Amino acid sequence: MSVITIERKILERNEQLGQQNREWLARHGIRALNLLSSPGSGKTTLIEKTLERLGGRMKIAVIEGDVHTSLDAERVDRYGVPVAQIVTQGGCHLEARLVQQAMDKLDLTGIQLLLIENVGNLVCPANYDLGENLKVIVLSTTEGEDKPLKYAGMFRNASLLLISKMDLLPYLHFDLAALRRNALQINPALRVFEVAATTGQGMEAWCGWLEEFVAGRP
Amino acid sequence: MSVITIERKILERNEQLGQQNREWLARHGIRALNLLSSPGSGKTTLIEKTLERLGGRMKIAVIEGDVHTSLDAERVDRYGVPVAQIVTQGGCHLEARLVQQAMDKLDLTGIQLLLIENVGNLVCPANYDLGENLKVIVLSTTEGEDKPLKYAGMFRNASLLLISKMDLLPYLHFDLAALRRNALQINPALRVFEVAATTGQGMEAWCGWLEEFVAGRP
Repeated sequence: MSVITIERKILERNEQLGQQNREWLARHGIRALNLLSSPGSGKTTLIEKTLERLGGRMKIAVIEGDVHTSLDAERVDRYGVPVAQIVTQGGCHLEARLVQQAMDKLDLTGIQLLLIENVGNLVCPANYDLGENLKVIVLSTTEGEDKPLKYAGMFRNASLLLISKMDLLPYLHFDLAALRRNALQINPALRVFEVAATTGQGMEAWCGWLEEFVAGRP
Repeated sequence: MSVITIERKILERNEQLGQQNREWLARHGIRALNLLSSPGSGKTTLIEKTLERLGGRMKIAVIEGDVHTSLDAERVDRYGVPVAQIVTQGGCHLEARLVQQAMDKLDLTGIQLLLIENVGNLVCPANYDLGENLKVIVLSTTEGEDKPLKYAGMFRNASLLLISKMDLLPYLHFDLAALRRNALQINPALRVFEVAATTGQGMEAWCGWLEEFVAGRP
């Protein structure tokens, strides 16, 4: 059916552009992460708190993706880092072409880490390579332990899982061990961090990992 | 461009089938709601607690939509109501055709209310009419007050907003008044309920509304 052929062509074209982005970033010594999650899992807060902690230690740029509004870019802009907002106007995921346009607009001189915050969506962004080195899923404790099984495509393609809003754990019916088990069942190579951006819990471990990542490890 | 033409055709075909579903449901005296939200907002728990309260008062059937797994249908099945699971296998939204297939599988004799739980996604399901009478958005307090602005397409098409997980309010930095303001800015006709399915807060008002809805009002 023609729809499938066209979709395959779109994905192939996206992969070419993603590869171009990755090569450009590598030539300029920039490591990139694609941050994926449901709406409201706390990606932007995580980025803000990461900038607070790492701002003095490394040069970071941010690309924000949203269906509508530039609210997230405005939040990140307060931290004085290069930031661009992609507004997809109804599109349910970022794609390499849009990230390329955003990269063109930013001054990335000397940047070591590029954080790309994807559209809040656990389905569509899974198949779209943006040129990142790794995909990071942020899943909040409020979302329930069944999500890795339901959104397996996303969890299969990711390298890191950040379990966010750990500070809410005492107030939830949430089985943390089951979440870890479900996530590792889908993707045994997944590296898991537990964080609470607002209280700081786990943020040193996450930021330590980012420093290793920027240094080319892993 | 051909992709757009094909997408328009898909949407047109979906609207025809949605209309067919709506007419079939009306002929059989069944009122239907399309429940929309992010992953993990608590739609399934809301359905479970609604079945607990209303099970003796009206006949309800449930259609569950997920990308993978039939976990939600298994949860709902315990309440002894007719339930069907649609697994989209990567698809980011339900469509009228899939709901029609699910309706065909269910014994809907005497059913008064059909609850359709869409795939957890605040973008893609917005444009797909399933044949429901009304769309209901469930948004949890943990997701933040900016979501109506970011996912405006969804909020524009809905009739009801259920603010869920109200019991977590004391532990969050969440501006309830701002959420209401943002939601009503996008859609001034939106009817808003505040609920906490696990504690029961607001559930009588919601169930009272459902009884009115089933009686043909509003």
